Amino acid sequence: MTDHTSKQFESELESIRTRVLQMGGMVELQIAKAMEALGNGNVAALDEVVDHDHHINLLELDLDDACIHIIAKRQPAANDLRLVMSVIKAITDLERIGDEAKKIAKMGKRLHASDAVFVPRVELRHAASLAVDMLRKALDAFARLDSTAAAEVVRQDKEVDAEFKGIIRQLITFVMEDPRTISRGIDILFMAKAIERIGDHAKNIAEYVVFMDKGTDVRHTGLANIERAAKAD
Amino acid sequence: MTDHTSKQFESELESIRTRVLQMGGMVELQIAKAMEALGNGNVAALDEVVDHDHHINLLELDLDDACIHIIAKRQPAANDLRLVMSVIKAITDLERIGDEAKKIAKMGKRLHASDAVFVPRVELRHAASLAVDMLRKALDAFARLDSTAAAEVVRQDKEVDAEFKGIIRQLITFVMEDPRTISRGIDILFMAKAIERIGDHAKNIAEYVVFMDKGTDVRHTGLANIERAAKAD
Repeated sequence: MTDHTSKQFESELESIRTRVLQMGGMVELQIAKAMEALGNGNVAALDEVVDHDHHINLLELDLDDACIHIIAKRQPAANDLRLVMSVIKAITDLERIGDEAKKIAKMGKRLHASDAVFVPRVELRHAASLAVDMLRKALDAFARLDSTAAAEVVRQDKEVDAEFKGIIRQLITFVMEDPRTISRGIDILFMAKAIERIGDHAKNIAEYVVFMDKGTDVRHTGLANIERAAKAD
Repeated sequence: MTDHTSKQFESELESIRTRVLQMGGMVELQIAKAMEALGNGNVAALDEVVDHDHHINLLELDLDDACIHIIAKRQPAANDLRLVMSVIKAITDLERIGDEAKKIAKMGKRLHASDAVFVPRVELRHAASLAVDMLRKALDAFARLDSTAAAEVVRQDKEVDAEFKGIIRQLITFVMEDPRTISRGIDILFMAKAIERIGDHAKNIAEYVVFMDKGTDVRHTGLANIERAAKAD
């Protein structure tokens, strides 16, 4: 590669990294907005979240296309190829997080349209803020290529899962006491499930960071192995 | 490329295609086995499904690794690159389908451990067989590079979604009549959700087939556009 080509290649890779982070920031905002609007019953804001989802879908398509072009034109190897492959995987997760935010917004609309009668009073905010925190940390770890921070995200996923189980228990109690809450209870259940899924996707992104940084594919290997890989030179 | 290298490259691509289909066959079997064991209360078979999931995870890691090696070594372009990229995406979906089969098996175990008291009688078999049919057709379309068949899979996803909604309605009725069915009702709800997700993943695979075949990325574009792309030359 000439110096010129090599610089251009560098800047293409940098642009992809930047766009992943922008896309990540956007989905983070979508979740935050959906949760806030759910809390204060701002239906217009819930509509905005639903409408905005297609921008995130377009970012996914654009980024995928950019990655394919880089592979075809630049024939990246080693670290560079790992970066491109990780981006291809990570943006699928970001797009799915966007879908989950959209689902939360849609169910939120239904909840508020039902005039809040027979709605189980179950708090989702703590679980959601844990999941958003995981996503933010995973994106940070991606930006800094920080495997140790990424391993921390994987560990945090257990907290979100525990929150999710707690929410289910609360919902069961509510519905047992007043079966008329079952319809809205199911909406809340699926919102909780969406939050749990956001945590899973953030965990996936964190695992790709370890792959980018260390070259070890840590998926399906368990937390102990991930922490070991993150510490390895 | 020399004739020899080119033949070797061809056989590497063929091997990847074959392994995707094997992985697909394996996850299809996992769903079928989980559903059958759920029906006849065969807890040993449910355990087998849970245990077998890690084989599918390993297939994902192996196939991903093989794809990265092909990109690094062979620098595929055009159709070949599209094939490799589609495989990278498709195996993520296959692995997730495996996860959903595992979830069904785990919840099935809980259902049978509860001695079948207060269990809502809701039939999941029809939805499951629709989802399995979608998966089988998507894999077939992948094998034959058949965009028309792939578009058909995307259309079928609406049927699975409709089945899913019907199941929710039935569950609501059950729980309203006897709130003690709520705990097992939630398990059944998540099993239905797993089946619906299997349909979504099969749809994703079908969309990659159109990309491989036609070079058009049809994700997020809607059924009409997918059918148009499938018909294009």
